[in-house]
Amino acid sequence: MPSQPSRELVTFPNPAPGRDYWIRHECPEYSALCPVTGQPDFGTIVILYVPDALCVELKSLKLYLWSFRDEGHYFEQVTNQILDDVVRAVKPRRLTVVARFNVRGGISTRVVARYDKSA
Amino acid sequence: MPSQPSRELVTFPNPAPGRDYWIRHECPEYSALCPVTGQPDFGTIVILYVPDALCVELKSLKLYLWSFRDEGHYFEQVTNQILDDVVRAVKPRRLTVVARFNVRGGISTRVVARYDKSA
Amino acid sequence: MPSQPSRELVTFPNPAPGRDYWIRHECPEYSALCPVTGQPDFGTIVILYVPDALCVELKSLKLYLWSFRDEGHYFEQVTNQILDDVVRAVKPRRLTVVARFNVRGGISTRVVARYDKSA
Amino acid sequence: MPSQPSRELVTFPNPAPGRDYWIRHECPEYSALCPVTGQPDFGTIVILYVPDALCVELKSLKLYLWSFRDEGHYFEQVTNQILDDVVRAVKPRRLTVVARFNVRGGISTRVVARYDKSA
Amino acid sequence: MPSQPSRELVTFPNPAPGRDYWIRHECPEYSALCPVTGQPDFGTIVILYVPDALCVELKSLKLYLWSFRDEGHYFEQVTNQILDDVVRAVKPRRLTVVARFNVRGGISTRVVARYDKSA
Amino acid sequence: MPSQPSRELVTFPNPAPGRDYWIRHECPEYSALCPVTGQPDFGTIVILYVPDALCVELKSLKLYLWSFRDEGHYFEQVTNQILDDVVRAVKPRRLTVVARFNVRGGISTRVVARYDKSA
Amino acid sequence: MPSQPSRELVTFPNPAPGRDYWIRHECPEYSALCPVTGQPDFGTIVILYVPDALCVELKSLKLYLWSFRDEGHYFEQVTNQILDDVVRAVKPRRLTVVARFNVRGGISTRVVARYDKSA
Amino acid sequence: MPSQPSRELVTFPNPAPGRDYWIRHECPEYSALCPVTGQPDFGTIVILYVPDALCVELKSLKLYLWSFRDEGHYFEQVTNQILDDVVRAVKPRRLTVVARFNVRGGISTRVVARYDKSA
Amino acid sequence: MPSQPSRELVTFPNPAPGRDYWIRHECPEYSALCPVTGQPDFGTIVILYVPDALCVELKSLKLYLWSFRDEGHYFEQVTNQILDDVVRAVKPRRLTVVARFNVRGGISTRVVARYDKSA
Amino acid sequence: MPSQPSRELVTFPNPAPGRDYWIRHECPEYSALCPVTGQPDFGTIVILYVPDALCVELKSLKLYLWSFRDEGHYFEQVTNQILDDVVRAVKPRRLTVVARFNVRGGISTRVVARYDKSA
Repeated sequence: MPSQPSRELVTFPNPAPGRDYWIRHECPEYSALCPVTGQPDFGTIVILYVPDALCVELKSLKLYLWSFRDEGHYFEQVTNQILDDVVRAVKPRRLTVVARFNVRGGISTRVVARYDKSA
Repeated sequence: MPSQPSRELVTFPNPAPGRDYWIRHECPEYSALCPVTGQPDFGTIVILYVPDALCVELKSLKLYLWSFRDEGHYFEQVTNQILDDVVRAVKPRRLTVVARFNVRGGISTRVVARYDKSA
Repeated sequence: MPSQPSRELVTFPNPAPGRDYWIRHECPEYSALCPVTGQPDFGTIVILYVPDALCVELKSLKLYLWSFRDEGHYFEQVTNQILDDVVRAVKPRRLTVVARFNVRGGISTRVVARYDKSA
Repeated sequence: MPSQPSRELVTFPNPAPGRDYWIRHECPEYSALCPVTGQPDFGTIVILYVPDALCVELKSLKLYLWSFRDEGHYFEQVTNQILDDVVRAVKPRRLTVVARFNVRGGISTRVVARYDKSA
Repeated sequence: MPSQPSRELVTFPNPAPGRDYWIRHECPEYSALCPVTGQPDFGTIVILYVPDALCVELKSLKLYLWSFRDEGHYFEQVTNQILDDVVRAVKPRRLTVVARFNVRGGISTRVVARYDKSA
Repeated sequence: MPSQPSRELVTFPNPAPGRDYWIRHECPEYSALCPVTGQPDFGTIVILYVPDALCVELKSLKLYLWSFRDEGHYFEQVTNQILDDVVRAVKPRRLTVVARFNVRGGISTRVVARYDKSA
Repeated sequence: MPSQPSRELVTFPNPAPGRDYWIRHECPEYSALCPVTGQPDFGTIVILYVPDALCVELKSLKLYLWSFRDEGHYFEQVTNQILDDVVRAVKPRRLTVVARFNVRGGISTRVVARYDKSA
Repeated sequence: MPSQPSRELVTFPNPAPGRDYWIRHECPEYSALCPVTGQPDFGTIVILYVPDALCVELKSLKLYLWSFRDEGHYFEQVTNQILDDVVRAVKPRRLTVVARFNVRGGISTRVVARYDKSA
Repeated sequence: MPSQPSRELVTFPNPAPGRDYWIRHECPEYSALCPVTGQPDFGTIVILYVPDALCVELKSLKLYLWSFRDEGHYFEQVTNQILDDVVRAVKPRRLTVVARFNVRGGISTRVVARYDKSA
Repeated sequence: MPSQPSRELVTFPNPAPGRDYWIRHECPEYSALCPVTGQPDFGTIVILYVPDALCVELKSLKLYLWSFRDEGHYFEQVTNQILDDVVRAVKPRRLTVVARFNVRGGISTRVVARYDKSA
């Protein structure tokens, strides 16, 4: 039975909650549709965070990123949405999303957004 | 008006039909679905050919590669299909398709198929 | 109908105005004329900014960079002009322009200028 | 239910048996034990072949390479064994195994073996 | 007589205890089992520390990293365990563990944990 | 007085006409207009030849490549035209033009054409 | 009429004197003589500065670096001399010279000197 | 008990004598003395061979290369000597030695010698 | 007359004693013996310093690094010894030694030690 | 006493005259003057040959390449001259000169000439 794309991010308990440490997931297989032209866009999403009580489960992160495939998203908007979605699910101490998008019109774009619980 | 994915490959007359020369198009934005798991696969498709009377038009090649996005395809099958489709549309003297697919199960796969009119 | 080079930078509303985040556009296809020799110069322009109310639209950025093609510009001057033009249109919180120019006379040149609204 | 390491290589019908073409699988996650010291060795295995009636199924190839993990193998021997095992299961027209092993005693080793049905 | 995998980390006296300086060991040959699928995972472990009275002996570090080979470990847990184990044995002034794991499900993961005696 | 773009290729006598040897000029600063969209294209032109009685003078080659800047040219056509133009001016024993064009529509294109006097 | 090597650095007015920004010139074609052996040395000189009222003109910088070609210079001395010469001519707000020299006796040398008007 | 440098190359039976295949050992830790200046030289030795009845044992190869450390050797001579020594001990079907030596006097040197039993 | 390995570091007067600036020497040809196995170790030594009254002469530095060739040295000890030796001879304002050693037992090691006169 | 630039190439007897093997010297420190502008040119010269009775001595090769420093030379001419000079002095079985020159006018040039005694 194949898995399904899903906006649900599954979490598991942080094995070292007493320590501030960094987890970094890099996925070069992001794809969505351009809201203007309807054509597919491609990019790499990096999620870098300091967990608090929870960590994000790797397979659910894959299904989450898959869930954008058939939707229209602007580069700036989707980067902020991924930040908001992962913050809501994982409630990290700090989190950064780096999104690197492929060349369009001779220009390559990168968007970087950060969250800090204590800020 | 957005363009649409399409299996139709548009051609234009070869500007130098009296000469054997090579044209190479590399597209790092191929994506289709895995027929077993239903999950998206990603890869780079290189099309390298010696034109005869016709050349393939670049935009239609982009729309052609886009047309695989929502279909299930095995690596070996789709490489041969792209070879057959482009040969049928462009009727080249020689043509090679190189397909490099992303890591799955710790293994990265590449498939290379060739066509030679004179063979 | 082909697009035209244009100094008009089109903007759209920042989808996450409540957050400081970075957007980076890199264009390796800048070209202008050398004011001394009249010969074409080439370079890569990187625009990196924290948006406030507005973001710059990607296609208009391409047309903007195209607009320098038939004009004479010194490296130092054009980098500062791009900074001023984008600041005026986008009114960002912070913005950096990095311009890397090709080798001339055995020397390659890079110019980096920054704007900070709060400074 | 986790999969198990297995020497069984699963095959599927070649989708283009009328054409000579190349399939290349690269696995950087080979590991076995050194027969002399008992310590783990690591390497990358590349399998490159022209299929005849059969292709090797990717997941079974992963399980096959996993099956060496707890066994002692010399570099030269295991490369030839992989060649023999894959030839026996897949009956290809031609096949090459390239095995690149990590540095031992300041020396890195590579072994390359080939099979040709028509030879 | 072959060496054996061992959780015992052997130490030797720091030859320059009067000075804060950094020692960095990088091992690209970490392997353990995935606790969910039972399949082998692979990665590179970097240990970077400021010694106090003791340094870690290189061969025992190799045997220590080998000791994870037949055990199930999550990425986040094992990075923190290596940090705790080395801190307990070596009692450094400061120590960082960087663990880079191979691609799983199209995503590569890195975990970084730090220890500071004075913190 | 600035130099001017010019289709005239200046030559000088081959200093070693008794020997077959190769000369290779690589220019990463080719630019022309796309005949369909009117927008600038960019690329690298490599000219590789065995001279007979004449060699091409470097500065005139620069002015020659500059002469395409304000004209519309298809990738396949312009590569063959450069081959024809340089063959006509330099009358080499053998000549190859390699043209590598920047990404358009997610696809990068390369065209390679060859001339052989004895063929 | 060929240009001549010259210690005279020509300047032009800074087009953006109201802003602190960086200009970086990199020249991989520095050559002088070793004062001990008389043999040629080679290196790359990087000049990075924040202009005040003046910028250095690119062609005069090329002629300036050429002027060392027939003189004997130690690595440490010449780096400081270039710093002093450019500071005297350009009167920048800040300036850094990075000089990277080719391998001599199995050792490659780099010298970095900085000037800060406000220091 | 430490091992000793030794000109004795130990062999073991080829596990696949019925097949022509390649074994490649690369050692970046060659060092000898320059016969002219007495100073240490450094280089990388690659040994690439098709075994016949015998393979060279890896540890003895390490001790063999160590044995040059305190001797004077010219680049051209030592490459041919390694070829002769390994051919004598291993009696391969074919063997190539590639020796890459570090920069001396601004020049880096590489020597490549081949042996073919059937030649 | 060949030079000899020597622990004597020759100095010369700093040509710019009134300025804090950095000198960096990188030598990829360090070799000593492992005190445990007696086998040769290899590495790259980087010496980076701010001179005070003296600079280290390049040839004497080469002879100094050569002097370790026939001695047994642990990685951690020798890095600190080089720091102490160069500090004693050159009396710099600040000095860093970076020592990168080749892979041993699958692990590569780097040691970094610093000296600051004012600390 | 410093060495002097010299067109005299010193040779020594080939230590393995009974075998065809390759020697390759690469010198990235070629410099001469442009005959048109009088300005210095820079490049890398590779000399690759099969010795017959003689080999070229490394230090004399360095002095030979130094001898072009104050002379005017065209790229095509000097490559053929180096070929002729080395062939005359060393009388090799085969020899190739590869000369790679730095960017001039946005174009980088490479010249390759070959000699074959038996041709």
